[in-house]
Amino acid sequence: MTNTFANIPSVEHKVKLEERWRANGHRSGILWFTGLPGAGKTTLALELERTLFARGWHAFMLDGDNIRHGLSSDLGFTADDRSENVRRMGEVAKLFADGGAIAIIALISPQRADRQRCREIGGDLFHEVFIDAPVEICERRDPKGHYAKARRGEIPLFTGISAPYEAPLAPEVHIRTAELTVLQSMAMLLDYVSRCFELR
Amino acid sequence: MTNTFANIPSVEHKVKLEERWRANGHRSGILWFTGLPGAGKTTLALELERTLFARGWHAFMLDGDNIRHGLSSDLGFTADDRSENVRRMGEVAKLFADGGAIAIIALISPQRADRQRCREIGGDLFHEVFIDAPVEICERRDPKGHYAKARRGEIPLFTGISAPYEAPLAPEVHIRTAELTVLQSMAMLLDYVSRCFELR
Repeated sequence: MTNTFANIPSVEHKVKLEERWRANGHRSGILWFTGLPGAGKTTLALELERTLFARGWHAFMLDGDNIRHGLSSDLGFTADDRSENVRRMGEVAKLFADGGAIAIIALISPQRADRQRCREIGGDLFHEVFIDAPVEICERRDPKGHYAKARRGEIPLFTGISAPYEAPLAPEVHIRTAELTVLQSMAMLLDYVSRCFELR
Repeated sequence: MTNTFANIPSVEHKVKLEERWRANGHRSGILWFTGLPGAGKTTLALELERTLFARGWHAFMLDGDNIRHGLSSDLGFTADDRSENVRRMGEVAKLFADGGAIAIIALISPQRADRQRCREIGGDLFHEVFIDAPVEICERRDPKGHYAKARRGEIPLFTGISAPYEAPLAPEVHIRTAELTVLQSMAMLLDYVSRCFELR
């Protein structure tokens, strides 16, 4: 029996990204939601995932909190570990985009340099979405009760209170959630997604 | 203007896995290809990815070598680092399966304990596929020239030569690539995939 395993060049079998786009009916990419805790990243990311899914699109939301329980469960909250966590999210997001999906990332990712690294990992597929609200508003919302804990000193390096947030300088999308409803924010997001991800 | 961000419970918006299965027309999961270097993992994984894609299924192949350049670029080849590399692949594979895709992993993953951990991460979604060939055959194939290098001592801990490979005890699929052609191996794989991943 001929053994055919040795002679097959493996790379030729790969499905090309453009083939995946045609099959899915849309382009793929990374929508990187950055912003303060409580700015609305998770809310909008989940809503966008649901809306795109209802459209028949392939979108998957990766939440920072969930990743902390899995892929980054070995990491703590030192500056280095937070950077490494952001890098890993960037790498995973790129894999999803390579697989034809729209990866929606909801992650504070407070450092410009970390986000820039993710942009380099993602290349043309990377889109920065600034979910922007003043820290006073975020603290008033405090959906997870983290601001209260941070004020009591129970969370040492909390972005917005005791650790800096470096706002994006030129995000592809800028959503001011203190001035918009969820519906209005979604309309802005969907407008951007349609312009960038619809196949022409 | 009403600010609606604070009051929306985020989890309710998530798309359920079964909804993704129905939309895609198949179940999702992890096909974990383990085996010696040169056993045929990459060849079969790429071929399976291409075949499932041609069927209109959502499959994405994650290759150990590629991940080493991205997600695991911070890791070396010590025992701990290899274990950590396997764990990360397991976590990423789970994310793809959660997103509705069939993740095809091609990774030597020589340690039973590491693979067991990935099975725990993946739960019911995890399927172990043993790509099995005797080391003499793999060395004769040597598609990447790594066996030759390992024999010359240029790769210190090389699985099959200077580091052990712990064969699966009860893999879901067992493909003996020294006795089968690629076509025959693919037929076995596709039979298993159809049985497990087709929606009924």
